[in-house]
Formats: sequence, structure tokens, C-alpha cells
Amino acid sequence: MKKIEHIGIAVKDLAAANATYKALLKTEAYKTETVESEGVSTSFFKTGESKIELLAATNADSPVAKFIEKRGEGIHHIAFAVDDIETEISRLEEEGFQLLNKTPKPGADNKLVAFLHPKSVHGVLVELCQEKGPSPTLPEGEGVN
Amino acid sequence: MKKIEHIGIAVKDLAAANATYKALLKTEAYKTETVESEGVSTSFFKTGESKIELLAATNADSPVAKFIEKRGEGIHHIAFAVDDIETEISRLEEEGFQLLNKTPKPGADNKLVAFLHPKSVHGVLVELCQEKGPSPTLPEGEGVN
Repeated sequence: MKKIEHIGIAVKDLAAANATYKALLKTEAYKTETVESEGVSTSFFKTGESKIELLAATNADSPVAKFIEKRGEGIHHIAFAVDDIETEISRLEEEGFQLLNKTPKPGADNKLVAFLHPKSVHGVLVELCQEKGPSPTLPEGEGVN
Repeated sequence: MKKIEHIGIAVKDLAAANATYKALLKTEAYKTETVESEGVSTSFFKTGESKIELLAATNADSPVAKFIEKRGEGIHHIAFAVDDIETEISRLEEEGFQLLNKTPKPGADNKLVAFLHPKSVHGVLVELCQEKGPSPTLPEGEGVN
């Protein structure tokens, strides 16, 4: 694990939460993105080498909608940056962690991702993130650092 | 806010959680510390420029014990590093955030800290942390970076 890539925070109203986190962090969201496969709209704020990712459900079956229904708004997951997600998945399985994704899947923010079951990490939903490299759809210089 | 200083994670058994996070992060806890005023034993792991702080209750009245009783183990708070905590407290009050501490108090890891009420941050308990400078009780070179 190289660093905290981001903290995911489940919110009911993305626009309201964007205003709150803009005031808190004294910076604008630098990106918003909808990931239909996960049923979420997201926005990203930079803080040091990490990001805050706000997550709002796009439908009632979204995992984020279910999380909020059960626990209310709040911190949803921690994502760690890794260099090689497949190697890290293998290593963590050997260590006894329960992987929710044994093969990486595409995530928000141009990443390959995999999740660990909170039961094997003392109640914390952990995401592994590997950068896919600059997105071909972004103009040069606007890739995620 | 300069960066994520640490993520606080509430756990039942600090020794068991230390073993889990050592395996997850591939690094040992670099420090353990008990903060009697908060009713917690803590351990710290480095990850990039940030830390993971595991928190276990030292008594049944500890806020961490109550958190676990209500929600189970899991992510407890996000702490952001600030240069000048009093200036930041004033700024955030003016922005409409509800401060749980209007004057900073001593926290773990040689910090001055103040908390924001989760109700004003979409369910997230936010801590502000200002480094107090190298602790006089630590040998030179072992201060927190």
C-alpha cells in the first residue's frame, strides 16, 4: 500500500455535500463523475496527496443508498493506492483477507479497483486502487497525478 | 487543510487489529499510546504522508466504546493537518460548521486537536490536528515528521 488514495463518503445530496466540503477543505471539487455500474455519482476534492470522494446514489438499489439507509451519511470506505493490484490481491488472499473482487474491475477516476470485505478488516471497507494511466479521453496535462 | 493527517478506526481488540493492519499495510505499528483523558489506547501505522490510527476503548464510558456499541467496529473519524488550529477553528465557525471544541485540546501523537460535529459534515466526525513540534520526551530524530 503506497498511500491513502482517497476516502469515500456516502452523502444523500451531492450538491449540498459539495458545498460543505468546498467550505471545509477550502477547495473546489476538481472532478465529478457518474459510475452507472456502481449506481453512484461522485465528486473529488484534493487534500495533500489524497482525495475525498463524495458518493451519492443514483438509484434506490445502489450500495450507497443501502449504506445510508442502514447507517446514515458518513465514511463509506478507505482506498489505498497500489502499484500492481493483481499482486496485492494475491498477497492479501494469502494473508487471509476476504476479497470481494478476486479480479480487478474498472472504478471511478480512471482506476482498476478491488474491495476487501469489512469483516476481515475490523469493520472497514477497504478498496485497492491501481492507476490505469492517463485517460485517452482527457486533454494532455489533465490526467490524474 | 494541508492533508489527511490520519484516519481513526475504532476496534475492539487492539492487539488483534494491530496484527490485521500490519498484514494489510505491510508495516508495523510505529507507536502505541494511551490517552487516558479520551479513554483510548491507540496505535499508529504510516501510509504515504498519512497515518492509520487504531483506537480501542480503555473503559466502558469511552466514546470509542459507545461508538462500537452503537455501530460496531469501523472508521471513526478523519483528521486533517492544519498549520494554525485556532485560525482554522475561527474560519470554520464563520463558515457555519459546529465545533465540538472551540479551543484546541491536547490529543495523541503530540498534537493540538479540535473536532467538528458530524451533523455539520454529512455524518463525518472531522478532527483538526496541529503539530505541537518535536516532543521533548522523544530522542532526536524520532519526532513525528
